[in-house]
Amino acid sequence: MKPVTLAAKASSANHSLRPGRVTLVGAGPGDPDYLTVKAMRVLQTAEVVLFDDLVSPAVLELAPLEAERIPVGKRGGRVSCRQDDINALMIVLAKGGRHVVRLKSGDPMIFGRAGEEIAALEREGIAVEVVPGITAGLALAAELRTSLTHRDCAQSVRFVTGHARDGKLPRNLDWHALADPATTHIYYMAGRTAGELARRLLFHGLDASTPVVVASDVGRVTRQVTHIRLDQLAELEIELECPVIIGIGEAMRAAQGAEGTSLLRAG
Amino acid sequence: MKPVTLAAKASSANHSLRPGRVTLVGAGPGDPDYLTVKAMRVLQTAEVVLFDDLVSPAVLELAPLEAERIPVGKRGGRVSCRQDDINALMIVLAKGGRHVVRLKSGDPMIFGRAGEEIAALEREGIAVEVVPGITAGLALAAELRTSLTHRDCAQSVRFVTGHARDGKLPRNLDWHALADPATTHIYYMAGRTAGELARRLLFHGLDASTPVVVASDVGRVTRQVTHIRLDQLAELEIELECPVIIGIGEAMRAAQGAEGTSLLRAG
Repeated sequence: MKPVTLAAKASSANHSLRPGRVTLVGAGPGDPDYLTVKAMRVLQTAEVVLFDDLVSPAVLELAPLEAERIPVGKRGGRVSCRQDDINALMIVLAKGGRHVVRLKSGDPMIFGRAGEEIAALEREGIAVEVVPGITAGLALAAELRTSLTHRDCAQSVRFVTGHARDGKLPRNLDWHALADPATTHIYYMAGRTAGELARRLLFHGLDASTPVVVASDVGRVTRQVTHIRLDQLAELEIELECPVIIGIGEAMRAAQGAEGTSLLRAG
Repeated sequence: MKPVTLAAKASSANHSLRPGRVTLVGAGPGDPDYLTVKAMRVLQTAEVVLFDDLVSPAVLELAPLEAERIPVGKRGGRVSCRQDDINALMIVLAKGGRHVVRLKSGDPMIFGRAGEEIAALEREGIAVEVVPGITAGLALAAELRTSLTHRDCAQSVRFVTGHARDGKLPRNLDWHALADPATTHIYYMAGRTAGELARRLLFHGLDASTPVVVASDVGRVTRQVTHIRLDQLAELEIELECPVIIGIGEAMRAAQGAEGTSLLRAG
């Protein structure tokens, strides 16, 4: 963290030769092994790194020692950065000639507010590149060794946010569609809303015995995985130490050998 | 390709010390830069590589020179491997003590028949690991610099196969749900079925002006991207030189600056 040094660098002769730019980089689920080769390379050339709370320290360590690291997490219950402030900060840094890496956990284009950041940067004429990442749903499938789209039971897979701006379930979800037994559903950030989610799916006709996987810290050694049925999910309370994703659908049945039961307690 | 040498190696003293195993590896969309670090490392230690048609030569080159490379593609119009034959081949190779890398384009757990392969291997007691990959939908979003889930217009993203076993649209798709304007849909392998797909979505109420992105060779220098409206998709014929993915939904509107128009011709 040497802001003075880097500010000096930004105002040097390089500035006019090399305009600043922003690269949105998918940090994957946590293990640096799950970064793409391109993400690794971009991160290793960063001058400034803006990172979310969920980005793992092991990934952050890959940035150069002299790169400035700025946390811009927005998780509930902590001091937060407003999205507008994050956008403004990226714009100032890039206009100062810096290469800004915006590190987002998972893939930047899945539930990451990347759309708003890209729009703000492009309005200012700042070059933006995006490097994809392994989103939590794919990491979960790999760790469970369970295809998300086994052709006998699922012709599609759907990633759904489990909370809206107010922390509750999004209001405009089509529950009839979500209760489709021929689709695998992965709900992101669904710890707080899991019980209500399950009750709504049951109400809209999804079978009580539908297999459910509740997972936290996917892609990390601290991973926890629990296998239950949909009707059990409706009755349970999920402890909230860490972000939770929930897989629902027949495709999850094949995964029932996987480990871990400590994530849940009776509600 | 030195099957004799490698068969000799498999029957050497190493055999009893080190049982064979299979790693399903996501090869991503084509550019080796989109491999994960783990995928790269696993591929570099492969003894045998079984690869699909869509795996790029640039990725395949990363396997050791002496690794046996076996194409097991199943694309229409070419000589095909039956899934049972692929499973049997992996089992024989792994039982011979080899480390088999099963390279699948994109992510192994999305429309890759991985579920059937894993089940067959586990029935034989063979160790299976899965390394996730960048699926085409994520690569498309990165290249378009378009979030798949901009919170103003999409609370979920859904990956759907555009063809069933018979090459037509899957029969058990819920078209009412697919016509949901608050979800971004990415249809995989949908070149042949694009027109019918669009007509069904229009029939079920999705707006004629809904933005559509038709893309081929995502994640490769040969990439082609075309921006149209849903009603135009219903009228067009897609040339079939290469696999096509189609993004449909308001989230695709932000991408309208991207390049390329040569993929489509009037039907």
